[in-house]
This record gives sequence, structure tokens and C-alpha cells, in this order.
Amino acid sequence: MTADRVTHAFDQALQLRTLQQDLQGCRFGGHTHAAWDNMVGPYGGILAAIAVHGVQQHPAFLGQPLALTVNYAGPAAAGAWELQIRLARTNRSTQHWTFELGQTDADGAYSVVLTGTVMSGLRRPTWDGTDMPIPDVPQPETLAPPQDPVFMGWRARYDLRRAGGGLPAQWTPAENAASAELASLDQMWLRDADARPLDFAAVAAACDIFYPRVWQRRRTPTPAGTVSMTVYFHADAPALTAVGADFVLAQARAQEYRGGFFDQTAQLWARDGTMLATTHQLVYYKS
Amino acid sequence: MTADRVTHAFDQALQLRTLQQDLQGCRFGGHTHAAWDNMVGPYGGILAAIAVHGVQQHPAFLGQPLALTVNYAGPAAAGAWELQIRLARTNRSTQHWTFELGQTDADGAYSVVLTGTVMSGLRRPTWDGTDMPIPDVPQPETLAPPQDPVFMGWRARYDLRRAGGGLPAQWTPAENAASAELASLDQMWLRDADARPLDFAAVAAACDIFYPRVWQRRRTPTPAGTVSMTVYFHADAPALTAVGADFVLAQARAQEYRGGFFDQTAQLWARDGTMLATTHQLVYYKS
Repeated sequence: MTADRVTHAFDQALQLRTLQQDLQGCRFGGHTHAAWDNMVGPYGGILAAIAVHGVQQHPAFLGQPLALTVNYAGPAAAGAWELQIRLARTNRSTQHWTFELGQTDADGAYSVVLTGTVMSGLRRPTWDGTDMPIPDVPQPETLAPPQDPVFMGWRARYDLRRAGGGLPAQWTPAENAASAELASLDQMWLRDADARPLDFAAVAAACDIFYPRVWQRRRTPTPAGTVSMTVYFHADAPALTAVGADFVLAQARAQEYRGGFFDQTAQLWARDGTMLATTHQLVYYKS
Repeated sequence: MTADRVTHAFDQALQLRTLQQDLQGCRFGGHTHAAWDNMVGPYGGILAAIAVHGVQQHPAFLGQPLALTVNYAGPAAAGAWELQIRLARTNRSTQHWTFELGQTDADGAYSVVLTGTVMSGLRRPTWDGTDMPIPDVPQPETLAPPQDPVFMGWRARYDLRRAGGGLPAQWTPAENAASAELASLDQMWLRDADARPLDFAAVAAACDIFYPRVWQRRRTPTPAGTVSMTVYFHADAPALTAVGADFVLAQARAQEYRGGFFDQTAQLWARDGTMLATTHQLVYYKS
């Protein structure tokens, strides 16, 4: 299925209304979109996408996104939100932005939902290389969509093909993993369920695609939620255009689980092996 | 050698003068310290330490640092700086802060040096685990300090013992690595040259310890500098106290080098294998 850029659920969720704008930033108004609902509030990936998309809309925006950090400060209620972006510094070839997304409730009380930063810049031809080649996994066409229960709205926005790891077949608690290195490794192909060309905002959204690693590691479903995510964009706009609406491979593994927080390190590649982004997140969990 | 907490170069660099303070944040004044000079401006790690230390000083600060992102927006000149911190949101067990460090030049022009965010929180007893065990490397006492030329002031602040990787013995350009996975792997023990108990600020500083991975990978020295760094703190204060002034093991590897920017993923462990922090950075390079 193909949807155009106006009616696509991703673009609808990213619709911004400019409330105020000057040389140093702007305030945008927007609205949560039910298609992206998660268990509590919107899917974190769509909020990350809104932030980077918003920064890209400013007339002073320089180059292409290079780094994004988004902190999930509190849940977003269904309804209107406001995104403030501010230009902190422009250099010859790089630029630094800060952002805050918040909501005002019926009583007029304002709450911060997101804090974060975006760095952008001009890319130059350099010696390029990779120390993290795409893993050897089956092609997505050979894999069936997973049988995971789709109990969150946003999950239906993606066409997933499990290549390794994933939700446990049986939720039998595992306190100790046979191989620590593999215990939390998750590998999946993903693309928009409704075809849409890949862009920076969509990469940011895809970086939050993984189920909480602690579910896979312990084979126990526990409350968990991302509290901070960082994305480093390695692909430039032409490289994203080359991907189009094709599958990309997403891989994640956890590093450490301690005292209610674990971290995850992850990569996204195009099918031809081009690294699109590397991403990390810190996740709250309860046990 | 032991220095007390007033005269130690690390604590001197972190000295803050409160310029203004309210419930939502404060402005601190400080000054660059020559002991931490890098090639251009201060060592990035000391700036990260100043930011997290500053946030910890606010009376409203909740819990312990969990996540730090610092963006290096521009070089800091030798002299005075100002750190503004702002409390974005306090939840029951977590808190979100933003910060900006800047300088005002002789003409009264203000420039942003750092932007960033800190997340803090209360830790709770949970099931804990690791998917990234400490690598099997020789103990630091069996290793001699490296012969690396110490041409940057900050380098003398640390006692390093190379356990793997490091600067090339010969700067012979290597366009293609025999093993991509190992080509940029760097492993070193580090401790303060002047003994000082480990704390969150010192962990943040240590996360920037690595030479640019691209130097090791290409065996070619090129201009390079960190543009964004994120630290996830996995150790709580008692775990840091247990380390004291002992060596910690730092390991880094690059993931992708493209168009003038590469990223690095890294870990810091206590000698007993306790994960202290995981950290990532995006680094500018020229080729």
C-alpha cells in the first residue's frame, strides 16, 4: 500500500503549525495522532521524529541532522503539544539546536514531555569506513511477519520481519543466559507498512523500534520505557533516498541492567550494507 | 601521589561560583584550568564533568546522575565561563535537566560552548545483569605506561596502561583493516595520576579518554574532535566509592566513519568487572 505524504500516518503525526518564529528558533503547535499510540502516550520514536523534523523546518537550519538526543521526561497525553526549538550556535559547517516539547493541561499547567538536542552539519567527502559491518542474516522476503501480539497501535505502522532474537516464544523466566553476548541480541528488518520514502525523521522513529531488551533477556514481561535516546545519523539525504521504502535492518543488544535502568546499543543498515544510523538508549525497567 | 579535594587539579577545574539561583535552576561562574588544556581549548572530558557536577550542586537535584549528553558546540577560550542549568521536570523518581555553558568575549559577545542534558533518578533494587562482561585483559600492574607522546596537558592528569589497541607504533596509512571488528578496538586501564576517589564527574571525564579512533584505524593522524558525547551511568555512588582511586578499564571501538564524522561506542568497568558507565560519541574528522 502506498499513501501520499499528506495522508500518511507518519506525516500526519509530524504536522506542525508555526506559532512564533524568529532568527533564533521557533514555537510549533501539533497534536498527538492515535495511529502512533503506545501503552502510555505516543510511541517514543514518533516523538523523536517530531523533534528532528521540527528543527529541520527552521529557515536557519544548516546541513543535515548528525546527532539527536531526546529525553523522555514525562508521558504525553492525547491532545495538543507545543515544540520549542532554539538555535544555540552556528559554526562554519555545524550547528547546535536545543528543543523542548510540552503540553498544557485543562488547568493551564504546563508539563515538559521531551528535552533534547540536535546537531546538524555539512558533510564533506572523506575517507569512509566501517567497523560494524551488516550482519549476515536472511533476506526479509524469506521471513514471515512475526507472530508477536500487536497490542500497541504504533506496531501496525511497521512491516517487521524477525531475523534473530525477538520476544520469547515462551515467557519462562531466565535468570542466567547461556551466552551473555547473545542473550539480548535482536535483529529485524523493518519498513513502513504504508510505503513511504525514508528520511531523517523516519530514521529517528525507527531507532526506537525494539521491544525492551529486558523482556527478551529475562523472558519476563515487566514495565519498561525509554528515558533517553541518542541517534547518530551516518547516512546523508541521497543515501536515505536510495533506500526509498525498502526494508532496513535494525539490530540491538543491551549492555548493562542495574538498579532499574538498562542501556541498549543498536544499528540500522540499508539492505546493501550502508550504515544508516547508530543509536543508544537508556531504559527504565521494573522487576 | 595524593592531593586533597581543594588542591587537586580536577576539583580546581570544577570550582563553581553561584551567580544566581532559584528553584528552577542556576547560573554558575567558573574558569578554565590550564592543567586540562587540550590541543584547542580544554579536554572535552573536563567540560562534561563540569556540567554534571554543576547539576548535582543544585538543592533540588534528585537522586544520582543516570544519563548525560554534552554537545561541543564551539571551542572554549582560556578564561571565564558561565554554566546555566535548568530543571525541566521532576517526577516521582526521575528528574530532567538542561544546561548550557558559554563565554563572553572582551567585546561582550556571548558564545555557546556546550549544550546538553542530564537525567538523574533514584535507583531501586532490581534484577541486575550484564550482556557486556569485562574483557579478559592483563592487570594494570603488569603493563607499563604507554610511550605515547604526551603533547596535551590533560594527558598528564591520567595514569594510563595500554591493554590493547592504542596509537599506532608506526603511522603507516592503512586503508583497509584486516579485521574490521578489531581495527579500532582500544583498551586501557586508567586512574588519576594524583589519586582521587571516583565520582560521577570523574566518570564523565574518563569517558572522553580515548584518542580519536580514526587515528588507530587509518594509522594516519588527522584533525579530529568530539562533537557530541552521551554517558549512561550504571554505577551508583556506593559502587563508585568502592572503586576509590583504583584503575578502571576503558574500552572503545568505532562503528562507522562517513562524510567527516565517525561514532564510537565505549564502556568503563571497575577492576572487579562492575560496569561503571557506557558511553558513545560522535567525532568530527578531516581526511
